[in-house]
Amino acid sequence: MKNIKIPKPTIKRLAMYYRCLENKKAKGMQKTSSKELAESLEIKASQIRKDLSYFGEFGKRGVGYDIDKLMDSIKTILGLNKKWNVAIVGVGNLGSAIANYTGLEKNGFIIKAAFDKNKSKVGTQISAGILVYDMDDLKKICKEKNIEIAILTVPASVAQQVTDMLVETGIKGILNFTPTTIKTPENISVEDVDFTISLKSLTYDIVSNNKDIYELAE
Amino acid sequence: MKNIKIPKPTIKRLAMYYRCLENKKAKGMQKTSSKELAESLEIKASQIRKDLSYFGEFGKRGVGYDIDKLMDSIKTILGLNKKWNVAIVGVGNLGSAIANYTGLEKNGFIIKAAFDKNKSKVGTQISAGILVYDMDDLKKICKEKNIEIAILTVPASVAQQVTDMLVETGIKGILNFTPTTIKTPENISVEDVDFTISLKSLTYDIVSNNKDIYELAE
Repeated sequence: MKNIKIPKPTIKRLAMYYRCLENKKAKGMQKTSSKELAESLEIKASQIRKDLSYFGEFGKRGVGYDIDKLMDSIKTILGLNKKWNVAIVGVGNLGSAIANYTGLEKNGFIIKAAFDKNKSKVGTQISAGILVYDMDDLKKICKEKNIEIAILTVPASVAQQVTDMLVETGIKGILNFTPTTIKTPENISVEDVDFTISLKSLTYDIVSNNKDIYELAE
Repeated sequence: MKNIKIPKPTIKRLAMYYRCLENKKAKGMQKTSSKELAESLEIKASQIRKDLSYFGEFGKRGVGYDIDKLMDSIKTILGLNKKWNVAIVGVGNLGSAIANYTGLEKNGFIIKAAFDKNKSKVGTQISAGILVYDMDDLKKICKEKNIEIAILTVPASVAQQVTDMLVETGIKGILNFTPTTIKTPENISVEDVDFTISLKSLTYDIVSNNKDIYELAE
Protein backbone atom coordinates (compact mmCIF):
# COMPACT_ATOMS: atom_id res chain seq x y z
CA MET A 1 0.00 0.00 0.00
CA LYS A 2 2.99 2.22 0.64
CA ASN A 3 3.07 4.11 -2.62
CA ILE A 4 -0.63 4.47 -3.29
CA LYS A 5 -1.60 8.12 -3.59
CA ILE A 6 -4.88 8.56 -1.73
CA PRO A 7 -7.09 11.25 -3.31
CA LYS A 8 -7.48 14.34 -1.13
CA PRO A 9 -11.32 14.24 -1.30
CA THR A 10 -11.17 10.70 0.13
CA ILE A 11 -9.23 11.99 3.14
CA LYS A 12 -11.75 14.79 3.72
CA ARG A 13 -14.60 12.32 3.49
CA LEU A 14 -12.86 10.03 6.02
CA ALA A 15 -12.97 12.97 8.44
CA MET A 16 -16.68 13.35 7.68
CA TYR A 17 -17.29 9.63 8.24
CA TYR A 18 -15.54 9.93 11.57
CA ARG A 19 -17.77 12.79 12.64
CA CYS A 20 -20.84 10.88 11.55
CA LEU A 21 -19.72 7.76 13.44
CA GLU A 22 -19.21 9.92 16.55
CA ASN A 23 -22.82 11.09 16.25
CA LYS A 24 -24.09 7.54 15.85
CA LYS A 25 -22.04 6.37 18.82
CA ALA A 26 -23.43 9.23 20.93
CA LYS A 27 -26.90 7.89 20.11
CA GLY A 28 -25.89 4.52 21.56
CA MET A 29 -25.40 2.70 18.25
CA GLN A 30 -22.69 0.03 18.00
CA LYS A 31 -23.02 -1.04 14.36
CA THR A 32 -23.67 0.83 11.16
CA SER A 33 -23.48 0.25 7.40
CA SER A 34 -22.28 2.16 4.35
CA LYS A 35 -25.98 2.57 3.50
CA GLU A 36 -26.73 4.22 6.86
CA LEU A 37 -23.65 6.45 6.60
CA ALA A 38 -24.67 7.32 3.05
CA GLU A 39 -28.12 8.40 4.20
CA SER A 40 -26.77 10.56 7.02
CA LEU A 41 -24.14 12.23 4.86
CA GLU A 42 -25.90 12.33 1.48
CA ILE A 43 -22.94 10.59 -0.16
CA LYS A 44 -23.30 7.41 -2.26
CA ALA A 45 -22.77 4.17 -0.31
CA SER A 46 -20.52 2.94 -3.12
CA GLN A 47 -18.30 6.01 -2.65
CA ILE A 48 -18.01 5.29 1.08
CA ARG A 49 -17.05 1.66 0.44
CA LYS A 50 -14.51 2.76 -2.18
CA ASP A 51 -12.95 5.34 0.16
CA LEU A 52 -12.59 2.82 2.97
CA SER A 53 -11.23 0.15 0.63
CA TYR A 54 -8.02 2.17 0.16
CA PHE A 55 -7.15 1.32 3.73
CA GLY A 56 -8.22 -2.29 3.98
CA GLU A 57 -11.21 -4.43 4.83
CA PHE A 58 -13.64 -2.90 7.28
CA GLY A 59 -16.95 -4.47 8.16
CA LYS A 60 -18.64 -7.48 6.65
CA ARG A 61 -21.21 -7.73 3.89
CA GLY A 62 -24.65 -7.92 5.49
CA VAL A 63 -23.27 -7.24 8.97
CA GLY A 64 -21.87 -3.74 8.53
CA TYR A 65 -19.23 -1.88 10.49
CA ASP A 66 -18.43 -2.04 14.17
CA ILE A 67 -18.55 1.68 15.00
CA ASP A 68 -15.76 1.66 17.63
CA LYS A 69 -13.40 -0.33 15.43
CA LEU A 70 -14.02 1.81 12.36
CA MET A 71 -13.55 4.99 14.41
CA ASP A 72 -10.24 3.67 15.76
CA SER A 73 -9.03 2.84 12.28
CA ILE A 74 -9.96 6.25 10.85
CA LYS A 75 -8.34 7.92 13.84
CA THR A 76 -5.09 6.10 13.11
CA ILE A 77 -5.28 6.84 9.38
CA LEU A 78 -5.84 10.56 10.00
CA GLY A 79 -3.20 10.83 12.71
CA LEU A 80 -5.80 11.61 15.37
CA ASN A 81 -4.64 8.93 17.80
CA LYS A 82 -2.37 11.56 19.35
CA LYS A 83 -2.74 15.13 20.59
CA TRP A 84 -1.33 17.94 18.43
CA ASN A 85 0.24 21.11 19.80
CA VAL A 86 -1.15 24.09 17.93
CA ALA A 87 -0.34 27.80 17.76
CA ILE A 88 -2.60 30.57 16.46
CA VAL A 89 -0.49 32.96 14.41
CA GLY A 90 -2.30 36.29 13.99
CA VAL A 91 -4.72 37.38 16.71
CA GLY A 92 -7.42 39.22 14.78
CA ASN A 93 -11.15 38.45 14.78
CA LEU A 94 -10.62 35.14 13.04
CA GLY A 95 -7.70 34.01 15.17
CA SER A 96 -9.71 34.81 18.29
CA ALA A 97 -12.76 32.97 16.98
CA ILE A 98 -10.72 29.87 16.24
CA ALA A 99 -8.95 29.97 19.61
CA ASN A 100 -12.33 29.86 21.31
CA TYR A 101 -13.76 27.09 19.17
CA THR A 102 -14.38 24.18 21.54
CA GLY A 103 -14.28 21.63 18.72
CA LEU A 104 -10.49 21.93 18.52
CA GLU A 105 -9.60 20.40 21.87
CA LYS A 106 -12.29 17.76 21.47
CA ASN A 107 -10.53 16.65 18.28
CA GLY A 108 -7.10 16.52 19.91
CA PHE A 109 -5.83 19.93 18.76
CA ILE A 110 -4.46 21.70 21.82
CA ILE A 111 -3.75 25.41 21.51
CA LYS A 112 -0.53 26.15 23.35
CA ALA A 113 0.22 29.72 22.26
CA ALA A 114 -0.83 32.62 20.05
CA PHE A 115 1.32 35.20 18.29
CA ASP A 116 0.79 38.74 17.11
CA LYS A 117 3.07 41.61 16.15
CA ASN A 118 0.79 44.14 17.83
CA LYS A 119 2.54 44.84 21.16
CA SER A 120 -0.76 45.85 22.82
CA LYS A 121 -2.03 42.28 22.36
CA VAL A 122 1.14 40.63 23.66
CA GLY A 123 0.66 39.29 27.19
CA THR A 124 -3.15 39.15 26.94
CA GLN A 125 -5.03 35.86 26.83
CA ILE A 126 -6.57 34.77 23.55
CA SER A 127 -8.61 32.15 25.41
CA ALA A 128 -8.58 30.77 28.94
CA GLY A 129 -4.94 30.32 29.93
CA ILE A 130 -3.49 30.83 26.43
CA LEU A 131 -1.11 33.77 26.16
CA VAL A 132 -0.43 35.96 23.15
CA TYR A 133 3.32 36.19 22.48
CA ASP A 134 5.28 38.66 20.40
CA MET A 135 5.82 37.55 16.80
CA ASP A 136 9.52 38.23 17.38
CA ASP A 137 9.55 35.29 19.82
CA LEU A 138 7.92 32.89 17.37
CA LYS A 139 10.89 30.57 16.93
CA LYS A 140 11.80 30.46 20.61
CA ILE A 141 8.27 29.83 21.92
CA CYS A 142 7.35 27.33 19.20
CA LYS A 143 10.42 25.28 20.06
CA GLU A 144 9.79 25.57 23.81
CA LYS A 145 6.17 24.48 23.49
CA ASN A 146 6.87 21.89 20.82
CA ILE A 147 4.34 23.43 18.41
CA GLU A 148 3.56 21.05 15.54
CA ILE A 149 0.78 22.89 13.72
CA ALA A 150 0.33 26.62 13.07
CA ILE A 151 -3.07 28.10 12.30
CA LEU A 152 -2.22 31.04 10.07
CA THR A 153 -4.63 33.96 10.47
CA VAL A 154 -2.40 36.92 9.60
CA PRO A 155 -3.21 39.40 6.81
CA ALA A 156 -2.57 37.99 3.33
CA SER A 157 0.08 40.64 2.69
CA VAL A 158 2.44 39.10 5.26
CA ALA A 159 1.39 35.45 4.85
CA GLN A 160 4.52 34.26 3.02
CA GLN A 161 6.85 36.22 5.28
CA VAL A 162 5.30 34.70 8.41
CA THR A 163 5.27 31.27 6.74
CA ASP A 164 9.02 31.54 6.17
CA MET A 165 9.44 32.33 9.88
CA LEU A 166 7.25 29.34 10.79
CA VAL A 167 9.34 27.03 8.63
CA GLU A 168 12.33 27.95 10.81
CA THR A 169 10.53 26.88 14.00
CA GLY A 170 10.41 23.21 13.05
CA ILE A 171 6.62 22.91 12.77
CA LYS A 172 5.13 20.12 10.67
CA GLY A 173 2.06 21.72 9.14
CA ILE A 174 0.18 24.95 8.53
CA LEU A 175 -3.57 25.46 8.34
CA ASN A 176 -3.69 28.48 6.05
CA PHE A 177 -6.67 30.79 6.50
CA THR A 178 -5.15 33.59 4.43
CA PRO A 179 -6.63 34.02 0.95
CA THR A 180 -3.28 33.42 -0.71
CA THR A 181 -1.12 30.48 -1.69
CA ILE A 182 1.85 29.98 0.62
CA LYS A 183 4.96 28.02 -0.23
CA THR A 184 6.79 25.72 2.17
CA PRO A 185 9.50 23.07 1.86
CA GLU A 186 8.11 19.65 0.90
CA ASN A 187 8.32 18.28 4.44
CA ILE A 188 5.90 20.89 5.78
CA SER A 189 2.27 20.20 4.94
CA VAL A 190 -0.13 23.01 4.10
CA GLU A 191 -3.91 22.89 4.04
CA ASP A 192 -5.82 25.92 2.77
CA VAL A 193 -9.09 27.07 4.30
CA ASP A 194 -10.47 29.88 2.16
CA PHE A 195 -14.15 30.21 2.77
CA THR A 196 -14.58 32.60 -0.16
CA ILE A 197 -13.63 29.61 -2.33
CA SER A 198 -16.42 27.68 -0.61
CA LEU A 199 -18.75 30.63 -1.24
CA LYS A 200 -17.83 30.56 -4.93
CA SER A 201 -18.44 26.84 -5.06
CA LEU A 202 -21.85 27.58 -3.48
CA THR A 203 -22.74 30.27 -6.03
CA TYR A 204 -21.68 27.92 -8.82
CA ASP A 205 -24.12 25.39 -7.42
CA ILE A 206 -26.91 27.96 -7.15
CA VAL A 207 -26.34 29.30 -10.65
CA SER A 208 -25.99 25.91 -12.31
CA ASN A 209 -29.14 24.68 -10.58
CA ASN A 210 -31.03 27.60 -11.98
CA LYS A 211 -30.00 28.08 -15.58
CA ASP A 212 -27.81 26.72 -18.32
CA ILE A 213 -24.58 28.60 -17.84
CA TYR A 214 -22.71 26.35 -20.20
CA GLU A 215 -23.77 28.26 -23.28
CA LEU A 216 -20.43 29.97 -23.17
CA ALA A 217 -18.80 26.64 -23.87
CA GLU A 218 -20.56 26.15 -27.17
CA MET B 1 -22.77 20.39 -22.28
CA LYS B 2 -26.00 20.67 -20.34
CA ASN B 3 -25.92 17.39 -18.51
CA ILE B 4 -22.24 17.07 -17.75
CA LYS B 5 -21.62 16.76 -14.04
CA ILE B 6 -18.62 18.92 -13.22
CA PRO B 7 -16.53 17.49 -10.35
CA LYS B 8 -16.66 19.60 -7.19
CA PRO B 9 -12.84 19.79 -6.89
CA THR B 10 -12.79 21.32 -10.40
CA ILE B 11 -15.12 24.09 -9.24
CA LYS B 12 -12.98 24.82 -6.19
CA ARG B 13 -9.88 24.94 -8.38
CA LEU B 14 -11.63 27.36 -10.76
CA ALA B 15 -12.06 29.69 -7.79
CA MET B 16 -8.34 29.28 -7.06
CA TYR B 17 -7.44 30.01 -10.68
CA TYR B 18 -9.56 33.15 -10.49
CA ARG B 19 -7.73 34.35 -7.37
CA CYS B 20 -4.38 33.62 -9.01
CA LEU B 21 -5.39 35.50 -12.19
CA GLU B 22 -6.42 38.47 -10.02
CA ASN B 23 -2.91 38.51 -8.50
CA LYS B 24 -1.27 38.34 -11.92
CA LYS B 25 -3.50 41.13 -13.22
CA ALA B 26 -2.62 43.27 -10.20
CA LYS B 27 1.03 42.83 -11.21
CA GLY B 28 0.21 44.30 -14.63
CA MET B 29 0.23 40.99 -16.55
CA GLN B 30 -2.16 40.54 -19.48
CA LYS B 31 -1.36 37.00 -20.60
CA THR B 32 -0.59 33.81 -18.73
CA SER B 33 -0.32 30.08 -19.42
CA SER B 34 -1.38 26.88 -17.73
CA LYS B 35 2.32 26.38 -16.97
CA GLU B 36 2.56 29.74 -15.17
CA LEU B 37 -0.67 29.11 -13.28
CA ALA B 38 0.62 25.66 -12.38
CA GLU B 39 3.80 27.11 -10.93
CA SER B 40 1.96 29.70 -8.85
CA LEU B 41 -0.58 27.24 -7.52
CA GLU B 42 1.48 24.06 -7.30
CA ILE B 43 -1.12 22.22 -9.37
CA LYS B 44 -0.23 20.25 -12.53
CA ALA B 45 -0.63 22.24 -15.78
CA SER B 46 -2.47 19.26 -17.29
CA GLN B 47 -5.00 19.43 -14.42
CA ILE B 48 -5.61 23.12 -15.10
CA ARG B 49 -6.14 22.49 -18.81
CA LYS B 50 -8.48 19.62 -18.02
CA ASP B 51 -10.51 21.69 -15.56
CA LEU B 52 -10.92 24.53 -18.05
CA SER B 53 -11.77 22.16 -20.89
CA TYR B 54 -15.09 21.31 -19.19
CA PHE B 55 -16.24 24.81 -20.04
CA GLY B 56 -14.86 25.26 -23.56
CA GLU B 57 -11.78 26.46 -25.35
CA PHE B 58 -9.78 29.11 -23.54
CA GLY B 59 -6.43 30.36 -24.76
CA LYS B 60 -4.33 29.08 -27.62
CA ARG B 61 -1.48 26.61 -27.68
CA GLY B 62 1.78 28.52 -27.49
CA VAL B 63 0.01 31.83 -26.87
CA GLY B 64 -1.63 31.17 -23.53
CA TYR B 65 -4.63 32.80 -21.90
CA ASP B 66 -5.80 36.39 -22.06
CA ILE B 67 -6.13 37.11 -18.33
CA ASP B 68 -9.14 39.45 -18.58
CA LYS B 69 -11.09 37.09 -20.83
CA LEU B 70 -10.34 34.03 -18.70
CA MET B 71 -11.33 35.93 -15.55
CA ASP B 72 -14.61 36.99 -17.16
CA SER B 73 -15.38 33.42 -18.18
CA ILE B 74 -14.63 32.00 -14.73
CA LYS B 75 -16.71 34.77 -13.15
CA THR B 76 -19.67 33.75 -15.30
CA ILE B 77 -19.16 30.04 -14.62
CA LEU B 78 -19.04 30.60 -10.85
CA GLY B 79 -21.96 33.05 -10.79
CA LEU B 80 -19.72 35.91 -9.69
CA ASN B 81 -20.86 38.31 -12.41
CA LYS B 82 -23.52 39.53 -10.00
CA LYS B 83 -23.62 40.70 -6.39
CA TRP B 84 -25.05 38.34 -3.79
CA ASN B 85 -27.04 39.45 -0.74
CA VAL B 86 -25.77 37.63 2.31
CA ALA B 87 -26.92 37.26 5.93
CA ILE B 88 -24.82 36.11 8.86
CA VAL B 89 -26.93 33.79 11.00
CA GLY B 90 -25.45 33.46 14.47
CA VAL B 91 -23.42 36.36 15.87
CA GLY B 92 -20.73 34.65 17.93
CA ASN B 93 -16.96 35.03 17.54
CA LEU B 94 -16.97 33.36 14.16
CA GLY B 95 -19.99 35.23 12.77
CA SER B 96 -18.38 38.52 13.84
CA ALA B 97 -15.04 37.58 12.28
CA ILE B 98 -16.69 36.72 8.98
CA ALA B 99 -18.79 39.89 8.96
CA ASN B 100 -15.60 41.91 9.22
CA TYR B 101 -13.70 40.00 6.58
CA THR B 102 -13.04 42.50 3.79
CA GLY B 103 -12.61 39.78 1.18
CA LEU B 104 -16.36 39.21 1.11
CA GLU B 105 -17.45 42.48 -0.44
CA LYS B 106 -14.47 42.42 -2.82
CA ASN B 107 -15.79 39.12 -4.15
CA GLY B 108 -19.35 40.41 -4.59
CA PHE B 109 -20.82 39.05 -1.36
CA ILE B 110 -22.66 41.89 0.34
CA ILE B 111 -23.68 41.39 3.96
CA LYS B 112 -27.13 42.89 4.42
CA ALA B 113 -28.11 41.64 7.86
CA ALA B 114 -27.14 39.46 10.81
CA PHE B 115 -29.35 37.42 13.13
CA ASP B 116 -29.05 36.19 16.68
CA LYS B 117 -31.47 34.93 19.28
CA ASN B 118 -29.64 36.73 22.07
CA LYS B 119 -31.76 39.85 22.68
CA SER B 120 -28.77 41.79 24.03
CA LYS B 121 -27.11 41.57 20.60
CA VAL B 122 -30.23 42.60 18.67
CA GLY B 123 -29.98 46.20 17.46
CA THR B 124 -26.18 46.32 17.70
CA GLN B 125 -23.98 46.49 14.60
CA ILE B 126 -22.01 43.40 13.60
CA SER B 127 -19.92 45.53 11.23
CA ALA B 128 -20.16 49.10 9.91
CA GLY B 129 -23.84 49.73 9.15
CA ILE B 130 -24.95 46.10 9.44
CA LEU B 131 -27.58 45.51 12.11
CA VAL B 132 -28.16 42.39 14.16
CA TYR B 133 -31.83 41.34 14.00
CA ASP B 134 -33.81 39.03 16.23
CA MET B 135 -33.87 35.43 15.00
CA ASP B 136 -37.65 35.62 15.32
CA ASP B 137 -37.66 38.13 12.45
CA LEU B 138 -35.55 35.93 10.16
CA LYS B 139 -38.23 35.27 7.56
CA LYS B 140 -39.49 38.85 7.43
CA ILE B 141 -36.07 40.53 7.18
CA CYS B 142 -34.62 37.99 4.72
CA LYS B 143 -37.55 38.60 2.40
CA GLU B 144 -37.33 42.38 2.82
CA LYS B 145 -33.60 42.43 2.09
CA ASN B 146 -33.79 39.78 -0.60
CA ILE B 147 -31.19 37.59 1.13
CA GLU B 148 -29.90 34.89 -1.22
CA ILE B 149 -27.15 33.29 0.84
CA ALA B 150 -27.00 32.57 4.57
CA ILE B 151 -23.71 32.09 6.37
CA LEU B 152 -24.62 29.71 9.17
CA THR B 153 -22.54 30.25 12.31
CA VAL B 154 -24.98 29.08 15.01
CA PRO B 155 -24.13 26.31 17.51
CA ALA B 156 -24.28 22.83 15.96
CA SER B 157 -27.09 21.85 18.32
CA VAL B 158 -29.55 24.22 16.61
CA ALA B 159 -28.11 24.04 13.09
CA GLN B 160 -30.90 21.95 11.56
CA GLN B 161 -33.64 23.91 13.31
CA VAL B 162 -32.26 27.22 12.02
CA THR B 163 -31.73 25.67 8.58
CA ASP B 164 -35.41 24.73 8.48
CA MET B 165 -36.26 28.34 9.29
CA LEU B 166 -33.90 29.56 6.55
CA VAL B 167 -35.53 27.28 3.99
CA GLU B 168 -38.79 29.13 4.66
CA THR B 169 -37.23 32.50 3.83
CA GLY B 170 -36.66 31.69 0.17
CA ILE B 171 -32.84 31.78 0.25
CA LYS B 172 -30.89 29.90 -2.41
CA GLY B 173 -27.86 28.66 -0.56
CA ILE B 174 -26.24 28.12 2.83
CA LEU B 175 -22.57 28.28 3.69
CA ASN B 176 -22.50 25.94 6.68
CA PHE B 177 -19.84 26.60 9.30
CA THR B 178 -21.41 24.31 11.88
CA PRO B 179 -19.63 20.99 12.39
CA THR B 180 -22.73 19.03 11.43
CA THR B 181 -24.48 17.92 8.26
CA ILE B 182 -27.61 19.95 7.51
CA LYS B 183 -30.42 18.85 5.25
CA THR B 184 -32.23 21.13 2.81
CA PRO B 185 -34.62 20.63 -0.10
CA GLU B 186 -32.83 19.94 -3.39
CA ASN B 187 -33.24 23.47 -4.71
CA ILE B 188 -31.25 24.96 -1.82
CA SER B 189 -27.49 24.49 -2.16
CA VAL B 190 -25.29 23.81 0.84
CA GLU B 191 -21.54 24.12 1.09
CA ASP B 192 -19.82 22.94 4.27
CA VAL B 193 -16.86 24.75 5.78
CA ASP B 194 -15.54 22.70 8.67
CA PHE B 195 -12.00 23.64 9.39
CA THR B 196 -11.53 20.71 11.76
CA ILE B 197 -11.94 18.54 8.65
CA SER B 198 -9.17 20.58 7.02
CA LEU B 199 -7.09 20.09 10.18
CA LYS B 200 -7.63 16.34 9.96
CA SER B 201 -6.63 16.38 6.32
CA LEU B 202 -3.50 18.25 7.41
CA THR B 203 -2.61 15.73 10.13
CA TYR B 204 -3.16 12.92 7.62
CA ASP B 205 -0.62 14.63 5.39
CA ILE B 206 1.84 15.09 8.23
CA VAL B 207 1.52 11.52 9.45
CA SER B 208 1.69 9.92 6.01
CA ASN B 209 4.75 12.01 5.14
CA ASN B 210 6.47 10.73 8.22
CA LYS B 211 5.77 7.03 8.52
CA ASP B 212 4.00 4.15 6.96
CA ILE B 213 0.57 4.27 8.53
CA TYR B 214 -0.84 1.78 6.08
CA GLU B 215 0.30 -1.21 8.06
CA LEU B 216 -3.22 -1.52 9.38
CA ALA B 217 -4.36 -2.27 5.87
CA GLU B 218 -2.22 -5.36 5.53
